[in-house]
Amino acid sequence: MRASVLNGIGDLAIEERPVPTPQAGEVLVRIGSVGVCGSDIHYYDHGRIGPYVVDRPLVLGHEAGGEVVGLGPEVARLEQGQRVSIEPGVPCRSCEQCLGGRYNLCPDVRFFATPPYDGAFCEYVVMPEAFVHPVPDNISDDAAGLIEPLSVAIWACQRGKVAPGTRVLITGAGPIGLVCLQAALAYGATEVVVSDVNAHRLALATRLGATQVVDVSQVELSSTGTEPDVLLECSGNPRATTDAIRTVARAGRVVLIGMGGDEVTLPLSYVQDRELVVTGAFRYANTWPTAIALVASGRVDLDTLVTGHYGLDEVEKALTAARRDPSTIKPIVRAVS
Amino acid sequence: MRASVLNGIGDLAIEERPVPTPQAGEVLVRIGSVGVCGSDIHYYDHGRIGPYVVDRPLVLGHEAGGEVVGLGPEVARLEQGQRVSIEPGVPCRSCEQCLGGRYNLCPDVRFFATPPYDGAFCEYVVMPEAFVHPVPDNISDDAAGLIEPLSVAIWACQRGKVAPGTRVLITGAGPIGLVCLQAALAYGATEVVVSDVNAHRLALATRLGATQVVDVSQVELSSTGTEPDVLLECSGNPRATTDAIRTVARAGRVVLIGMGGDEVTLPLSYVQDRELVVTGAFRYANTWPTAIALVASGRVDLDTLVTGHYGLDEVEKALTAARRDPSTIKPIVRAVS
Amino acid sequence: MRASVLNGIGDLAIEERPVPTPQAGEVLVRIGSVGVCGSDIHYYDHGRIGPYVVDRPLVLGHEAGGEVVGLGPEVARLEQGQRVSIEPGVPCRSCEQCLGGRYNLCPDVRFFATPPYDGAFCEYVVMPEAFVHPVPDNISDDAAGLIEPLSVAIWACQRGKVAPGTRVLITGAGPIGLVCLQAALAYGATEVVVSDVNAHRLALATRLGATQVVDVSQVELSSTGTEPDVLLECSGNPRATTDAIRTVARAGRVVLIGMGGDEVTLPLSYVQDRELVVTGAFRYANTWPTAIALVASGRVDLDTLVTGHYGLDEVEKALTAARRDPSTIKPIVRAVS
Amino acid sequence: MRASVLNGIGDLAIEERPVPTPQAGEVLVRIGSVGVCGSDIHYYDHGRIGPYVVDRPLVLGHEAGGEVVGLGPEVARLEQGQRVSIEPGVPCRSCEQCLGGRYNLCPDVRFFATPPYDGAFCEYVVMPEAFVHPVPDNISDDAAGLIEPLSVAIWACQRGKVAPGTRVLITGAGPIGLVCLQAALAYGATEVVVSDVNAHRLALATRLGATQVVDVSQVELSSTGTEPDVLLECSGNPRATTDAIRTVARAGRVVLIGMGGDEVTLPLSYVQDRELVVTGAFRYANTWPTAIALVASGRVDLDTLVTGHYGLDEVEKALTAARRDPSTIKPIVRAVS
Repeated sequence: MRASVLNGIGDLAIEERPVPTPQAGEVLVRIGSVGVCGSDIHYYDHGRIGPYVVDRPLVLGHEAGGEVVGLGPEVARLEQGQRVSIEPGVPCRSCEQCLGGRYNLCPDVRFFATPPYDGAFCEYVVMPEAFVHPVPDNISDDAAGLIEPLSVAIWACQRGKVAPGTRVLITGAGPIGLVCLQAALAYGATEVVVSDVNAHRLALATRLGATQVVDVSQVELSSTGTEPDVLLECSGNPRATTDAIRTVARAGRVVLIGMGGDEVTLPLSYVQDRELVVTGAFRYANTWPTAIALVASGRVDLDTLVTGHYGLDEVEKALTAARRDPSTIKPIVRAVS
Repeated sequence: MRASVLNGIGDLAIEERPVPTPQAGEVLVRIGSVGVCGSDIHYYDHGRIGPYVVDRPLVLGHEAGGEVVGLGPEVARLEQGQRVSIEPGVPCRSCEQCLGGRYNLCPDVRFFATPPYDGAFCEYVVMPEAFVHPVPDNISDDAAGLIEPLSVAIWACQRGKVAPGTRVLITGAGPIGLVCLQAALAYGATEVVVSDVNAHRLALATRLGATQVVDVSQVELSSTGTEPDVLLECSGNPRATTDAIRTVARAGRVVLIGMGGDEVTLPLSYVQDRELVVTGAFRYANTWPTAIALVASGRVDLDTLVTGHYGLDEVEKALTAARRDPSTIKPIVRAVS
Repeated sequence: MRASVLNGIGDLAIEERPVPTPQAGEVLVRIGSVGVCGSDIHYYDHGRIGPYVVDRPLVLGHEAGGEVVGLGPEVARLEQGQRVSIEPGVPCRSCEQCLGGRYNLCPDVRFFATPPYDGAFCEYVVMPEAFVHPVPDNISDDAAGLIEPLSVAIWACQRGKVAPGTRVLITGAGPIGLVCLQAALAYGATEVVVSDVNAHRLALATRLGATQVVDVSQVELSSTGTEPDVLLECSGNPRATTDAIRTVARAGRVVLIGMGGDEVTLPLSYVQDRELVVTGAFRYANTWPTAIALVASGRVDLDTLVTGHYGLDEVEKALTAARRDPSTIKPIVRAVS
Repeated sequence: MRASVLNGIGDLAIEERPVPTPQAGEVLVRIGSVGVCGSDIHYYDHGRIGPYVVDRPLVLGHEAGGEVVGLGPEVARLEQGQRVSIEPGVPCRSCEQCLGGRYNLCPDVRFFATPPYDGAFCEYVVMPEAFVHPVPDNISDDAAGLIEPLSVAIWACQRGKVAPGTRVLITGAGPIGLVCLQAALAYGATEVVVSDVNAHRLALATRLGATQVVDVSQVELSSTGTEPDVLLECSGNPRATTDAIRTVARAGRVVLIGMGGDEVTLPLSYVQDRELVVTGAFRYANTWPTAIALVASGRVDLDTLVTGHYGLDEVEKALTAARRDPSTIKPIVRAVS
């Protein structure tokens, strides 16, 4: 099969590899669409993310859907031909975190496109069937892949306890901010404010249902009178984060999703006197069925986020799309030729 | 002012009473629309509900909205002319339950139309402003009153932990079942099954967004393959309740909302082996802002439940509407002449 | 190795069986002490519990500790000679319940001494190391086995949200009631009332820290003025259960642990008006480290519950000890000769 | 009556004031013992804490117990002569926070010894009876006052979800750290590590049940292998706080109790990758009955923290005791002559 392999910073090449064979409980999936994530771009540009270093060839891509084309022994639930969305992390399932239902915190998780584990910019992958989720026909190939970023947003909403009556502020209207917006609305929020410095993205946020948008290059967030119960921080900008925390209501929740700094400065009087809860959202656990149901029912529209399609031999073009065109939201790599 | 007074079983009369005067922290509300609740009908028919006996004249009606027309001293938030929805129970605010945020369980609550406290089938009431909630102009007078039954449904969804991904079964498609349906959808449920024996009500449930309806006069609930995470029991029928509990999924929640029996029989092996959580929903606490937001944003449509309007001198006709016309859902008494 | 095998109702025999071989991730444990549980007695007396039928030879016993004497490949955490307590259910670790952290609800769990899976009245067992928990030297062999019933009690306290300030009522002072008592105290409860009809057991409850005991053969529970926040129902007696539920405080929790009836009758007005939460406790999940810490720190004393030791060839005597001597609490089978 | 009044920085004087008269629902309490809190010392030294400025005479002291000596109209629960502990903040009971059960976050709370509200370094106070809690005879006068700091610790344990099995780290072994230690043990924690730079305080921590103490003037916290599930930060030292956060286990909770900086720097990779939950504990809500039960049952020993008694005319000496004698933990002002 063909795989797009990152051999070093800025060095991608198509390579021929053997099609993997599913073992007990595993299935072989022919990859359809794979979304490009900021982390893919970061590995391509820098060769590392924090402690994760690309020190040998790595296949990128972890927002993937496809079709089951092979079954290992003991596969019980999936069948040949089933269209699926892939949950890209396989935890150990035996540690304290896994048995406690927090498998996203498993220290031994094997996660797509995170060294040393290969991802999905290729034609076939094998996965344990527990992490391969059927999708109905009204979910497109692209949306099957984008269930992954939607899962990030769902997890963030769960950690922030978003529900009807919750006022939500989303800082950053990139791909994650925009799925957070849609997820927050699906979780029942009737007031969702989105801030960014990019007018194009704010316009898209409005189109997707934001009840207010704030261009923080023009006005101070604090001047808008926004007092959210939940801050979903998607900008990764330390200054924006601290400014936003200062607006959060008593007993409010702050979920740090965006990456981009080593530290966040918490204004103590806000965290203490208002009893804010500040936490992170690290990937997700048990979100796929919910994400699929939200897309299948039409409550979340992932296709609208897609801004371009690229072949396996065009991964470089996909990874650099955003820097060529600032209106880029989500480029898709199509593994199927 | 005029008030419709219940003097005994089946004995209603219009009476002239003085307009009450708001004390410190209270407002005077001119009543607009008041929904008819099953409990109003029960008091009219039987003169009592359990330990609550109508042993002196009682004004019925507790689903009320209106307009602020007078302010007592120290009123801080409300103004003359503000359109409002009334939360009809005033708790003591000093007991363990109140200070713990569960003011619906306050043993000393004074609740509209529950002996010995008068309700809202009259022209004016006074209330502490904390229980008088502003509504925006896009909420009709009728909907301002029906925020009350919607609050019952919101509370039930909260107790049942309804969220995106939750599969919900609602047994009973009367007024409460239908607001529970709308609330469950607003809480993000993408699968909501409604059962009843009344084809008209099931058709209305379908129109309001039920993903499946089951006429349990025709088919057994257990034959439908429904395995809900949450059962919102609105029928008050003991047999239907027990049958429905048997279908609930592992770790599922059963919220008993309907009244109509003294006892519920729990199948032990289901409750134990599946660790079902069975609980009741008693009125509501802190639901009004959420209910108002859901109606104002168009996520819940209360006006569609209204099946007739009656004057203060037609309360008897309003209370008996359902027995004359089985398609009756929610009669409204208009206090304003 | 020798195993005590149940071949039919009342028909136990010692059988020679091969010592099992640990596979990848598994360890071989030489069994030390095994507690006798009511379910063992029930299988011995009746040949079944509900749908679980002893239709082929079965080894009973599931409250077991021992010593690691063999390691399969890929065992990472345990070593030869480690003294351990065995968690007797191995869930599938791939279903919705397992991945959600509720592995006690896994429909495919393989549980000791539950047909068709053998238990621990034998010399050796193999188990995946994730379910084999090290114990420190100050935990006796007997206590290592009795970590299992303590886990039931811990799980019950967790489901009932027992904490400092919680008033607890425990109905039934048998082995499970008595570990629930100790667990409730360890969870910080300062008021724990225990009811039973057996004066000997009530005296033991007092000795173990009950703040009040009620002999319900002498006085009505309702006459004692007890108003618990949490009822831990360990009697399995339907009448006692319903009586006890009527005493539970507003917003209280009822955890059904005892088995012994098919149905529980819930008084609706209590469950609804007081918003009681009624649920079951089915085995346990993630309790072993906590149970071990409580015993190791001296907060729970399991050894005091032991009322006799029996060899592998005396299992019948162990199973019938309670009917010979009503002061029996917990007989122990010693597998080591 | 006599009151010790702070007229400016370092300027205390005894003043004669009229005994206040209880209004409806209020009681008159003759003050017994009042603990000295760090905030009292801070007002004495600096004349302000953050936005709270002593710009007119202020009575300090908010850790108070006493005896009911007068009843206003409509007092229902308390009687003359009842020994009591005073909860020193009276919230509005009508705002969103109060009705939601989070009355500690009420923006209109009137709190003892917080400008402009007087505290308890005087002979008599009046309070609504809901905030005056009976204590049994086995609770001393001093302990009745020190229920207040114990409540801070209980609230911190609740926010940190301390329970059996939880590993706890307490940074700072001053009065609040030491009550946090006792509260954590009462909540069932079997592993409680305490760090400080004061050997005397660490020795006291050991005596009170700490399972490990760390002198961070000698060793790095990170070198101790401690990996707590919950950090109760009582030092108010920004550096110690950040160091301690880096040791917290996956899914751990960080409760910021100590004050002493404007900002806390959060290491992002810890908060995100481990999904730490960082929050503050601001005073307390609904903790008094629990605190009283823990002291009455002997699980918490408050008397052992008392390091000196002072008369009303010796408040200055009480406020400066700690700077004269570093072994000072909790000076007590006795209002009764």
